[in-house]
Amino acid sequence: MPGAAGSLHDVDNLPYGVFTLPGEAPRIGARIGDYLLDLAPVAASDLMEIAHALEQPSLNRLMACPPDQLAGLRAWLVDLLTTDAGRDTAEPFLLPIDSVRMQLPIEVGDYVDFYASEHHATNVGMIFRPDGDALLPNWKHLPVGYHGRAGTVVASGTAVRRPSGQRRGEGAPEFGPSTRLDIEAELGFVVGRGSALGDRVPASAFTEHVFGVVGLNDWSARDIQAWEYVPLGPFLGKSFATSISTWVTPLAALDAAWTALPGQDPTPLPYLEPATARGLDIAVEIELNGEVIARPPYAAMYWSPAQMLAHLTVNGASIRTGDLFGSGTISGADAATQGSLLELTWGWREPVGRDGRLALEDGDTVVLRYTAPGTLGGRIALGEVTGQILPASM
Amino acid sequence: MPGAAGSLHDVDNLPYGVFTLPGEAPRIGARIGDYLLDLAPVAASDLMEIAHALEQPSLNRLMACPPDQLAGLRAWLVDLLTTDAGRDTAEPFLLPIDSVRMQLPIEVGDYVDFYASEHHATNVGMIFRPDGDALLPNWKHLPVGYHGRAGTVVASGTAVRRPSGQRRGEGAPEFGPSTRLDIEAELGFVVGRGSALGDRVPASAFTEHVFGVVGLNDWSARDIQAWEYVPLGPFLGKSFATSISTWVTPLAALDAAWTALPGQDPTPLPYLEPATARGLDIAVEIELNGEVIARPPYAAMYWSPAQMLAHLTVNGASIRTGDLFGSGTISGADAATQGSLLELTWGWREPVGRDGRLALEDGDTVVLRYTAPGTLGGRIALGEVTGQILPASM
Repeated sequence: MPGAAGSLHDVDNLPYGVFTLPGEAPRIGARIGDYLLDLAPVAASDLMEIAHALEQPSLNRLMACPPDQLAGLRAWLVDLLTTDAGRDTAEPFLLPIDSVRMQLPIEVGDYVDFYASEHHATNVGMIFRPDGDALLPNWKHLPVGYHGRAGTVVASGTAVRRPSGQRRGEGAPEFGPSTRLDIEAELGFVVGRGSALGDRVPASAFTEHVFGVVGLNDWSARDIQAWEYVPLGPFLGKSFATSISTWVTPLAALDAAWTALPGQDPTPLPYLEPATARGLDIAVEIELNGEVIARPPYAAMYWSPAQMLAHLTVNGASIRTGDLFGSGTISGADAATQGSLLELTWGWREPVGRDGRLALEDGDTVVLRYTAPGTLGGRIALGEVTGQILPASM
Repeated sequence: MPGAAGSLHDVDNLPYGVFTLPGEAPRIGARIGDYLLDLAPVAASDLMEIAHALEQPSLNRLMACPPDQLAGLRAWLVDLLTTDAGRDTAEPFLLPIDSVRMQLPIEVGDYVDFYASEHHATNVGMIFRPDGDALLPNWKHLPVGYHGRAGTVVASGTAVRRPSGQRRGEGAPEFGPSTRLDIEAELGFVVGRGSALGDRVPASAFTEHVFGVVGLNDWSARDIQAWEYVPLGPFLGKSFATSISTWVTPLAALDAAWTALPGQDPTPLPYLEPATARGLDIAVEIELNGEVIARPPYAAMYWSPAQMLAHLTVNGASIRTGDLFGSGTISGADAATQGSLLELTWGWREPVGRDGRLALEDGDTVVLRYTAPGTLGGRIALGEVTGQILPASM
């Protein structure tokens, strides 16, 4: 495709998303170069069986399709965009990317957030428990995680209102708008095919169940979180909003991104299949008000996504199409690669960036960008996640 | 209605549920005495506008109806079941309760579990932290809660497979079937009308948003929970199954059950509207293998359900039709009124009941029963919750 070849959105990428045009029902598109391909009509015109799954307001029905159908769709798309005959068929259905409005791509089932970066967990431990062990005793034995609020997962671009809540005060707690609003740069994994209650999904079945990945910003009100989280975990400090990219990159586009994990010691229990665990070589960029303030490397993550899924289901918990699980904050080994302001300011002590931020201020805009090696030798862009902070409501 | 008058299922009760008959699509019924009234056809025959909302496989569409429509439906039902003309209309649509199969009544949005019993929180604190303060510093300032797994909420009657997972071991963690499987007798609140992201739902708006209540058993694998829950809260120790009653009792049936709270000291922050907070006088019975082992009183709960909802949304988190929030374990002041085996055995030390249980064994059956004062001077039964433990899968 002209404009696509060699770009971050070449035919080795082809993420899916849900778009609207004024006055029309939401439906599914794929991105190529600076265009969105309106999939339902082009698939129908080519008599594709899968066309009905593309006329939907979310990707859920598509993601639940059998792997061979999804592989067939992707092969057909590549053919459509790389052959003369295909391009003639596709051309009437290509829309300039700026002419469409992207929507939340999935109907979220359950949302789980992990804590899979050793650097992040260590930094948090050092900041909050300077006199204790940085990592808690369970951390290297299981991917620590918890359930978040699925109903407040919002699409990239949605403005985020500063939450109010309780925080620790002198004697009694105080109430007011959060004064420690933070980001968590994460990667999200979206479940395509579900499982039955009582069944485990082994790590080796990861690609059979996970459809693709999204960028994810787990907005966090640290003052609210710090007061509420013992003993049952984060609640209102996280539940006001979680932003995900409007584009879902299918796992097939990440074939060249798999890489070795940094290493796991001690060796985890057999159900976590440590011998075969792989990480993803995805580069993340955190931009605050137009300035890149950190570049976290996903390749530094301790726990693999397949281990997260195996752990999530080892007790027999079922998964459903649309379930979303986040990696937890992605942080690398040094300060320039940390995925939260909590870490970048080292506990609100060292201001970050040219605006000298400790925490997010009203009007601030955060953009998370992700790239990975593509299968054509270049790089591909995953869906970016952006959000601007609105002042607290009264 | 013959057989209903004066019973626990008289016309002051009228819970809603979803049922199936062999070969027919699931739809909505109301319980009266030992019968289920097949609501969709009788409403259609009486030209009720709401009939379409009754032909659904869950209560969600019905619960989202405006309050005046729901009040109208209830008044029409009472008329149908208490007048000669009404009974003639209803009669062909009454099915013996044993002839139908009840289903999960709601499509669960988000599931949140609170921790609202002071006795329970104190008991847990005394058992786990015998040398520290029983209650943590935040407990009397906010209703502590966390998100649970919505996708594994199951209907009463569903067998529960013993989960496997990691637990603390000598040196390294062990893996295997849970050896500390427990119950938590709770009350669940089901959201009817949702709210917009960014809006708060004040405690005073509770009845505008909550449709009704269900019985709830928050099955808990204490050994898994104890190892995993620091710092992000319970996860796999809870996520394998949460059972709710198949009947949802509308708030309208609980008009006579509201009662004063035991008292809140210190006075909570204004957004929790402490001056108007009310509790519910609901009696709970826990039966293990046919023997009643405890009778927790819901009236002893510290935090009111309206305060839980106000807290859940004070950060601007939206609620959706079908959202479910649990009260947390209901425990009274003495040992005969505790809502979990953890407490009843005082930390697995004193066996309970004629079977001498510390924790649940394979084949055990637990039934939770709930009654409340009705508006006709007698009592009404809320939906019961039953489940039998299956052995762990290999």
